[in-house]
Amino acid sequence: MKIILVGASGTIGKAVDTELSARHEVVHVNRTNGDFQVDIADPTSIERLYEQTGAFDALVCTTGKVHFGPFEQFTSEHFELGLRNKLMGQVNLVTLGLKHIRDGGSFTLTSGLLNDDPIREGVSAALVNGGLEGFVHGAAITLPRGLRINVVSPTVVEESLPAYGSYFRGTKAVPASEAALGYAKSVEGAQTGRVYRIGWSRDH
Amino acid sequence: MKIILVGASGTIGKAVDTELSARHEVVHVNRTNGDFQVDIADPTSIERLYEQTGAFDALVCTTGKVHFGPFEQFTSEHFELGLRNKLMGQVNLVTLGLKHIRDGGSFTLTSGLLNDDPIREGVSAALVNGGLEGFVHGAAITLPRGLRINVVSPTVVEESLPAYGSYFRGTKAVPASEAALGYAKSVEGAQTGRVYRIGWSRDH
Ligand SMILES: NC(=O)c1ccc[n+]([C@@H]2O[C@H](COP(=O)([O-])OP(=O)(O)OC[C@H]3O[C@@H](n4cnc5c(N)ncnc54)[C@H](OP(=O)(O)O)[C@@H]3O)[C@@H](O)[C@H]2O)c1
Ligand SMILES: NC(=O)c1ccc[n+]([C@@H]2O[C@H](COP(=O)([O-])OP(=O)(O)OC[C@H]3O[C@@H](n4cnc5c(N)ncnc54)[C@H](OP(=O)(O)O)[C@@H]3O)[C@@H](O)[C@H]2O)c1
Repeated sequence: MKIILVGASGTIGKAVDTELSARHEVVHVNRTNGDFQVDIADPTSIERLYEQTGAFDALVCTTGKVHFGPFEQFTSEHFELGLRNKLMGQVNLVTLGLKHIRDGGSFTLTSGLLNDDPIREGVSAALVNGGLEGFVHGAAITLPRGLRINVVSPTVVEESLPAYGSYFRGTKAVPASEAALGYAKSVEGAQTGRVYRIGWSRDH
Repeated sequence: MKIILVGASGTIGKAVDTELSARHEVVHVNRTNGDFQVDIADPTSIERLYEQTGAFDALVCTTGKVHFGPFEQFTSEHFELGLRNKLMGQVNLVTLGLKHIRDGGSFTLTSGLLNDDPIREGVSAALVNGGLEGFVHGAAITLPRGLRINVVSPTVVEESLPAYGSYFRGTKAVPASEAALGYAKSVEGAQTGRVYRIGWSRDH
């Protein structure tokens, strides 16, 4: 399969690359380097990316920014970052990718546990992750041509603990390689409309 | 309690009004009539509303628009309606209401079943409802002064079947008066960060 991986050089992206490159042709896309560049917050940049990549079998996105901070200090601009980047950036990778993806192809997005297992400064992440999961449920039942869509929702990964560990005290972390399994399941399996929770469960 | 009800003249709003007016002072807010007017899609209009209402004990929102249509025909503008109106309109009722709500007060928003039980033309509703539920989970754990926040997620109500019934074949409907119970539970109960599902269950 030809798999476009957006965010390939990131913490999760690198693990997904390792997992999928073993069996597939992975096209590495980042904001500043790789085979191609894209800014997912800019729909024109996404259109340009797909013109460059041409037809593909799977799109995997392992990037998406949101603002973290105390809820009472949140401004409209703070929410706007998450809406434009992680939420609509990933939605637009799907809507604009529809005319380039091959029959039977798949889209795999990234959310995270914070909508169901929130942390103090994560109100925007919670909103965005919930929006992504709803979007994936809604889109899955209407995609044409045998196309599929899923979202991977990892717990915090061990590689990120030095940077984010203080936000996640008490949360079990997993290696990024374990999160990467969710992407393989989505791309190489046959399910659609699923939220693959990695390293955590909604039953808490 | 002094309860501000935004969308008071709507299908669900009228039922919530009947339920809460029996025991509380309800301030009726709509887009075009009532005690006060607001356009929830416009943050300036929300600020003006709160200047007019003054301090209050509970804010209940039973309005919120999204675009319905086939996913493949969705444009950015179609998603934008739901983001500005039902999603950020309700988020802004909370963020801008924080400095007017009394200690121990509550916010109660409205989502709907479509993020977990999607229908064909409901991809934006799915995204928005998921976003609202994530937001409520994230906000609840950080609200100061004993403030609470919940969201009511009703199934389609019987009064709406003449208008929307064809989208919801096979979905059990409940009277709006039953949906109204969720709002009473949120306002008069003590829970926070809850999604009150009315007439449907996530276990399907
Ligand atoms: N890390 C975790 O523990 C964890 C857990 C759960 C969920 N998540 C979610 O998973 C996603 C990735 O997290 P991560 O920690 O792996 O992130 P990361 O290491 O910061 O990944 C950054 C990657 O995204 C690219 N990128 C940055 N901005 C971009 C843009 N506007 N358009 C396209 N690509 C862009 C970067 O490219 P350049 O280097 O060229 O800028 C880089 O490849 C995030 O949405 C995060 O919320 C992470
Ligand atoms: N009806 C259902 O079966 C059902 C089921 C689940 C969830 N929901 C959700 O519940 C919410 C209410 O649904 P509904 O069927 O009761 O709606 P509705 O009958 O159409 O309610 C309209 C109400 O909202 C007000 N309104 C319209 N635009 C507004 C704006 N921009 N700012 C402030 N107020 C505005 C209207 O005021 P004016 O009359 O002055 O315009 C009216 O009071 C929606 O978000 C819907 O998705 C509905």
